[in-house]
Amino acid sequence: MQDWRSVAAAVGPLDAAAMAAARARQPRLTKPPGSLGRLEDLAIQLAGVQGRAIPRLERTAIVVMAADHGVARAGVSAYPPEVTGQMVANFVAGGAAINVLARQAGARLTVVDVGVAHPLPLEDPKGEDLSLQRRALAAGTADLSIGPAMSRELAEAAVGVGIETAAAEAARGLDAVVLGDMGIGNTTAGAALVAALCDLAPAEVVGRGTGLDDAAWQRKVAVVERALRVNRPAPGDALDALARLGGLEHAGLVGVALAAAARRAVVVVDGLAAAAAALVATRLCPALRDYLVAGHASVEPGQRAALAALDLPPLLDLGLRLGEGSGGALALHLLEAAVRLHAEMATFESAGVAERSDPPPVDNS
Amino acid sequence: MQDWRSVAAAVGPLDAAAMAAARARQPRLTKPPGSLGRLEDLAIQLAGVQGRAIPRLERTAIVVMAADHGVARAGVSAYPPEVTGQMVANFVAGGAAINVLARQAGARLTVVDVGVAHPLPLEDPKGEDLSLQRRALAAGTADLSIGPAMSRELAEAAVGVGIETAAAEAARGLDAVVLGDMGIGNTTAGAALVAALCDLAPAEVVGRGTGLDDAAWQRKVAVVERALRVNRPAPGDALDALARLGGLEHAGLVGVALAAAARRAVVVVDGLAAAAAALVATRLCPALRDYLVAGHASVEPGQRAALAALDLPPLLDLGLRLGEGSGGALALHLLEAAVRLHAEMATFESAGVAERSDPPPVDNS
Repeated sequence: MQDWRSVAAAVGPLDAAAMAAARARQPRLTKPPGSLGRLEDLAIQLAGVQGRAIPRLERTAIVVMAADHGVARAGVSAYPPEVTGQMVANFVAGGAAINVLARQAGARLTVVDVGVAHPLPLEDPKGEDLSLQRRALAAGTADLSIGPAMSRELAEAAVGVGIETAAAEAARGLDAVVLGDMGIGNTTAGAALVAALCDLAPAEVVGRGTGLDDAAWQRKVAVVERALRVNRPAPGDALDALARLGGLEHAGLVGVALAAAARRAVVVVDGLAAAAAALVATRLCPALRDYLVAGHASVEPGQRAALAALDLPPLLDLGLRLGEGSGGALALHLLEAAVRLHAEMATFESAGVAERSDPPPVDNS
Repeated sequence: MQDWRSVAAAVGPLDAAAMAAARARQPRLTKPPGSLGRLEDLAIQLAGVQGRAIPRLERTAIVVMAADHGVARAGVSAYPPEVTGQMVANFVAGGAAINVLARQAGARLTVVDVGVAHPLPLEDPKGEDLSLQRRALAAGTADLSIGPAMSRELAEAAVGVGIETAAAEAARGLDAVVLGDMGIGNTTAGAALVAALCDLAPAEVVGRGTGLDDAAWQRKVAVVERALRVNRPAPGDALDALARLGGLEHAGLVGVALAAAARRAVVVVDGLAAAAAALVATRLCPALRDYLVAGHASVEPGQRAALAALDLPPLLDLGLRLGEGSGGALALHLLEAAVRLHAEMATFESAGVAERSDPPPVDNS
């Protein structure tokens, strides 16, 4: 298994020359300079990631890491823990939201069981753009409100599963990867991670997950407070926080993000689980930051806090709170638009369109 | 030519039974209730528009109305007026941003010359999903800062061109239409329309268009102030405001919106020109409001004011200020996602996934 440190070391800075060339191309396209807003910034970022003045976005993958959480028995979710495995079966059958969005985006969908506690379906998915990887390292984590969710060794092994997953995706060709997740109870773990890494109070980052009422929300806040008190992750040691407070799917996504960036793919962040994982991964490897794109703003306050800490403005804000990679999958369309506009638009010169007169023509009528 | 009044009268209320059926379907899909946020609302709205519990979004069109403006000679744009015709030529050649976005969306693109002052290219577009309609009613409008931009009769004729355009699109099959525009100077006319219809001060609605500096912005504010003073549109008479302050493309888009809604297609609003036209059309036909979707929030303050007046929250906010229908075209992807999720996701029952336990399971550990 490849150690995450060597993968992190392989994440280089963005290609400045490619970005400069992309930045020089934008004002030549037949539109007022800057009028495509953030789509222009995305094209330039992708140029830097890929090292190409005219980047492409053809080979995309969504990786959904699935795992269970000991804390799910503490009444922190509106759904029973069995739903994690049932939803993996739903992914395999093609009936979940992320299946629909992957098909619409033309993206491959890879679901990785990195620690689902309940039995998975025996059959494998139909269709070559959908795969299930059986890589469970444990039957979920221990209850983080009592002690560490997992050992440091187990967390590093789960990061390794993510690295191998991204390497396999890269071998098939990978311009962008979306970080997706499934795990009943994982907004509790995600909120605890963000609270620890950003030094925020639990009440600031705990949300209503899949739909808690006030009493259940207060119980969830108390669980996160207890988790922080019991575990006391070592300051400045993001891997310690990940092991004590996170889930196996968070750890897996850390590995996916690092290895995808090391292969010069853009990493699209989705909801709270993905944002918490991106935050951990960026603490382990600061160069990763420039490879990240935030697909959307979740309803979960911990996700917004993590994006703010990463200084990543979200592309979409549609009130989503589903996870699975859904907001990231929707954002792939915007990345593709950015890349296609950059590549396919005519230039002022080629189209015979007059450029802006500066200063504008004046008539004192 | 069909009178706009009979078209407006044909815009009926949304289908309440279809909306109720769509609303009942959403919680059965394998996701926490409400977790798809605004995509759930869109699916229900589209059900009401189409009168189908499971709506579709397969046949989409972008209509770009192009026209010139007498006010463009008053120094209100960073570009010379000739660019309107040059950009129409660019549309025909397939090199503009809206061509790229239409191709990505799989939408037909129809460009209508409803009043371009400068000569257009002689050739017609290649490709059956791109067409140019030569329907110029005048060589642009008169300068609205001196007197009425056009007569009431001319405005009504341009509305008629829009009605005929949408009827032709509907005959080809139309689930959604995007309102697009091209016209150097048209953010001045659009801002004047929004100021008049929403009773706002010019400085509140005038933006920097394609890229004005401070001095040019102040000149543009003064032009709008003069236009309102000189024209004094009759309160409560949106058609009078349209004729005195608007452009031929605004009038054309009013007709497109009305006729598309009368044929039960969703109307996707783009930037300032489209929002101003949607505002006029909704004043003429209040039932239109429920057929509208705001594709994006423009950088133009007048667009945001118009959307606020229509109580239409935008789907995207990416700093766009291009027009052409670009933000609306990008939003088609979100409408398609909403419809596909609604139609294609498995139900809890069919997928064998447990529904939420209410109240959630409690463990006092």
